[in-house]
Parts: sequence; structure tokens; C-alpha cells
Amino acid sequence: MQRTSLAEFPCSIARTLDVFGEWWTPLIVRDVYLGLRRFEQIQSNLGISRKVLTQRLDRLVEEEILARRPYSERPPRHEYVLTERGRELVPILLALMAWGDRWTSGEDGPPMTVRHETCGHAVTPVVSCPDCREPLTADGVRPEPGPGARIGPGTHEIARVLGRHPG
Amino acid sequence: MQRTSLAEFPCSIARTLDVFGEWWTPLIVRDVYLGLRRFEQIQSNLGISRKVLTQRLDRLVEEEILARRPYSERPPRHEYVLTERGRELVPILLALMAWGDRWTSGEDGPPMTVRHETCGHAVTPVVSCPDCREPLTADGVRPEPGPGARIGPGTHEIARVLGRHPG
Repeated sequence: MQRTSLAEFPCSIARTLDVFGEWWTPLIVRDVYLGLRRFEQIQSNLGISRKVLTQRLDRLVEEEILARRPYSERPPRHEYVLTERGRELVPILLALMAWGDRWTSGEDGPPMTVRHETCGHAVTPVVSCPDCREPLTADGVRPEPGPGARIGPGTHEIARVLGRHPG
Repeated sequence: MQRTSLAEFPCSIARTLDVFGEWWTPLIVRDVYLGLRRFEQIQSNLGISRKVLTQRLDRLVEEEILARRPYSERPPRHEYVLTERGRELVPILLALMAWGDRWTSGEDGPPMTVRHETCGHAVTPVVSCPDCREPLTADGVRPEPGPGARIGPGTHEIARVLGRHPG
């Protein structure tokens, strides 16, 4: 089933979800990041069908999130590695993880922790302001139209709301 | 179609995606955050079927991401607002947006910008370490098993990889 494409939405959240929001895709990126680079490993880990995994991997390579790297010539075999574009999705996974740790872990506590190599601490990643370095919250930011703003799919009503926003 | 539930995965990314990763869901949260609180507004903005939107909104209310708030008694009408749990998803949307701005905006530039009210700057949100406040990158963090770690759906192979991780 071909779902609505979000690629044409004048919204960077929608466009990101277009490549990253398909079911299983973030977990495939998680797996490759954690060191599962081969088809069989990822398939075994996630327990998904070969067909679905093949589709998702093809899309991720097409979108330059993952790249194929040969590890054997005879027989020809390749593994998957993150590209720069893909590596920059990892912090988003960390932010998703932090939310899940807080709201879905229950008494067991977080399944995984991340240690920041630079400072050595086990950390709860936060989304922050690059200028003042304070955490960004829903209340603390004001969305404004950007240079690429336009009325289009997924933004008809938003354009009106942002347009009448004071400031 | 009932998809595989990620709720049982011992992984906070998977569990978060279970409530937040369904197609359209992050954009519905985006819309409510940006001020589109009524069914008709969200439906008009996203151009999705009433059936799909109803399902997604019901799930978001059930998961306590959104809450219904009456705005009219006769006729009975309600709008949607973000709960605390829901508001804490907004920084993740900001991180998704930043990635999309960087990798999908092209010459037009970002469709939307966010201004950090505290410092007044238009900012590109980053995922950071809460201790040293430096940005977290794929290379700069080391994933480790947490207290809730176990071998389960979606983590069979990961458990092995993390288990043999030095440190």
C-alpha cells in the first residue's frame, strides 16, 4: 500500500517522517547504530519479514541514510553503515529514548542508558538551545514562519495560525 | 490492520514509537501544539480521512498524549490539548524539524523557525548532554544496558552486542 507522501509537505517534520517515520525504520537505524550491520542480524533482532526489511533497507539506502559496504567478495556480501545523514538521526533516537525511559519504562527502569564519552556521565539526552544551552520546552519556544514557508499540503491551517501569531 | 505491537519491546525507542510512531501521529501532535485544536481544523490541515484521524485521536487520548476539553455544552463539542506527556514530545518534534531543515529543505530554506523565548534567538534545536551541555552525537555516546535491559522482542541481537561492549 502506497501511503500519502509527506515529502511535498512544506514542513520539516513531515519531510523527516517521510524518510524516517515509516514503521520499523527508526528501529532499523537503531540496530545499525548499535552494531547490527547485516541483514540477518537485523531481521533476527526485530523479527520482521524479509520482505518488509528489504523494502525498508532499500528505501534507507535510496534516501542516503544507510550505505551498503561490501564485506566479502566471494560470495558477494554487504553490510549496512550509517551515512552522515543517518548519523545525524541518532540524536533524535536518543530524544525518543529519553521520552520512553520517562514515560514507558515503569518499575524496571530504562532498558538502555547512554554514557556521554566526553564528560563520562550516564545522561538523559535533552533537546536544547544551541545559544543559551537551556533545554527547549513546548512553552519556551515560539514557532514562526521560515523562508521556506508556504501554504501547501499539511500546512493550510497552520499558515493561518502562524500568520496571525503576534510577533 | 493490527501491526506488531512495539509496546512489549524492552527498548524505550520502540515503546515511544508504539504510541508516537504511527503514521500521522507526530503531525497531529504538531498541529495541536501549533494551535489547531479542533477535529475539523486538523482534518482540513492534514487532508486525512475522518476515520483515520478519529482512530489516531482516540489512541492519543487513550495514551494520555492528548486530552479532550469541552468548549461548548450545547451542542456538546470538545477540542484537543496536549497533556504533560504530550508536551514533552514537542522537543522531539523540534529535533525532527531540525534534521529536516538541514537535509530536506533545499533552496527554499526551512518552512518554520523556532524562537527561544528565554534568549530571544531563532534557534536550531540540538540534542545535548544535560551535564556538560555539549551536543550529543552518534560518535560521542556509548550505549550501555540499563536496569530494565532484558532479552526480548527487538533486542535479542542487541543484548549480545551490548553485552560484549567493553566498559
